[in-house]
Amino acid sequence: MGSAMAVVAQKRGHDVRLWGTWLDDDLLDPCVRGQPHPRLKLPLEGIALLRSPRLAEALQGAELVVHAVNSDGALAVMAKAAPHLPDVPILSVTKGLLESREGTMDRIDVVLEEHAGRPLRFVHAGGPAKAMEIARGVLTWMQFAGPSASAERCAQAMAGERLLVSTTTDIAGAELCSALKNAYATGLGLWDGMLGADAHNARAACFAQAISEMRTLATAAGGRAETVHGPAGVGDLHVTAAAGRNRLFGEGVGRGKPAAQVAAEMAAAGQLTEGYPAIATAWRFAQERGVRALPLLEAIHSIIWLGADVGSTLAELRFAT
Amino acid sequence: MGSAMAVVAQKRGHDVRLWGTWLDDDLLDPCVRGQPHPRLKLPLEGIALLRSPRLAEALQGAELVVHAVNSDGALAVMAKAAPHLPDVPILSVTKGLLESREGTMDRIDVVLEEHAGRPLRFVHAGGPAKAMEIARGVLTWMQFAGPSASAERCAQAMAGERLLVSTTTDIAGAELCSALKNAYATGLGLWDGMLGADAHNARAACFAQAISEMRTLATAAGGRAETVHGPAGVGDLHVTAAAGRNRLFGEGVGRGKPAAQVAAEMAAAGQLTEGYPAIATAWRFAQERGVRALPLLEAIHSIIWLGADVGSTLAELRFAT
Repeated sequence: MGSAMAVVAQKRGHDVRLWGTWLDDDLLDPCVRGQPHPRLKLPLEGIALLRSPRLAEALQGAELVVHAVNSDGALAVMAKAAPHLPDVPILSVTKGLLESREGTMDRIDVVLEEHAGRPLRFVHAGGPAKAMEIARGVLTWMQFAGPSASAERCAQAMAGERLLVSTTTDIAGAELCSALKNAYATGLGLWDGMLGADAHNARAACFAQAISEMRTLATAAGGRAETVHGPAGVGDLHVTAAAGRNRLFGEGVGRGKPAAQVAAEMAAAGQLTEGYPAIATAWRFAQERGVRALPLLEAIHSIIWLGADVGSTLAELRFAT
Repeated sequence: MGSAMAVVAQKRGHDVRLWGTWLDDDLLDPCVRGQPHPRLKLPLEGIALLRSPRLAEALQGAELVVHAVNSDGALAVMAKAAPHLPDVPILSVTKGLLESREGTMDRIDVVLEEHAGRPLRFVHAGGPAKAMEIARGVLTWMQFAGPSASAERCAQAMAGERLLVSTTTDIAGAELCSALKNAYATGLGLWDGMLGADAHNARAACFAQAISEMRTLATAAGGRAETVHGPAGVGDLHVTAAAGRNRLFGEGVGRGKPAAQVAAEMAAAGQLTEGYPAIATAWRFAQERGVRALPLLEAIHSIIWLGADVGSTLAELRFAT
């Protein structure tokens, strides 16, 4: 996703440096040789490519920083980046929740700021944006959430052509949507695995319930319902549930395999299943904040993390009607 | 859908009479012979089957009437039924808008009441409910919208097993959702036809925009936003856009064929494309009510009804961000 955002920024006429972490050499190597990016299937033309030791150089004098580190690595990268980070907007496409120093799950911007030891001009990029499509110029609607001036600056820098960008000050709502959609998309995939093509009603019922529970959780975190009803919520859940690794992960579990085994098999094939940890962190967040009445998330958590039987758990699923 | 609701009612222990219009002989004939229902692929066991001349008998002494006539035939059937209709709740799964005596598009319950010449205890059944799945007991979440007592009575009669039913007094919101989702699902299908599997971002952007425009139209009709954000709105749009004839119709047009030709080919194959007229009536409704700022519906209407070029129209699509 970082590479895709780099392609967009370069198309907008910016000078772009793409820095890769110490885990990204496999992605950068072919690009340095002028070959297509292994995941985007596009050459990264006109973009300066910097390997991990060159972090300070990558950040020096930057007018805007795009943050696209997987949530697992976000703290480690921030520890290295903080001394070099200019006071500019940080547009983050990283999704998830992180553990704060207090030991509770919180928003990525809150925890990163805690670790940076100073205020960050953090803008969360939500909305339905598969990397390959955004790089190729397919119509995409993102929502940039953060302090007005920073969010507007990011939108001015990145929007254009087929990339539509809304801005909002509701960073809590937007981050919660991004963190939760992987968890709920996995839940929708369970039906595909269990019932196959004849599960449309059940999937759609759970889609509506997911929106309801995302609204409950986002507002409990200080976010706004309208964010859940826009691109960052219904839009992103739609794309994540329609296709992608999290839905595939759910499908595998829905067919009766243990979650750990499906995740391990997908990991062996190089497929990251963000939904797997996302379900645990979402559930923990709900418990820590005292949010009740989340029957769908509870069922998903029971199946994926407590080994509950898929068939009987989904058969007992009831929503407040 | 009428047959599916009959199966559900029979499973709940009710005495059920299934009456078919003069167009439904092909469906009833095999059922009368004890063969499976041609569309549901299930036998209609324990259900009295009545052909079209037996309408009065079908209605006599009924405690609840399920109305499942296609919107095209709703007025003609109401004209025949009105003299025999008992004063009981009418649970309607019919979707669409009809022309009122004033000559403007309005809700089905409003127009049917006008034609019946007396108040009807009309309850609209919204929500994601494909007939075959509801008949087979797949988890389904419907929303019954109407005056409280009537809606509750319908819910008590039909809910149970895997059919979850919410009730609401927001009949305007629920009917608008049901009428609009076929139009917007067709629009989402355009992307599948034009870009194929690589249109996830565009589809999801339009899904979020469709929810926004459905909210605008539903509230203009006196409905409530919360209905659009629940099963009747996001839930039903999800299932309609994921699979079904309206999405297929859009796909065909997205591949470059004229809409009239795709509709004719589908009609020849026995497939009803409700989205085709639904787009015209939704657009007419918007114009008559003075609702502006509906860029997605405008684009869909231009492509389907005014022959606008799919590629350039979708390329110019912009949402208020």
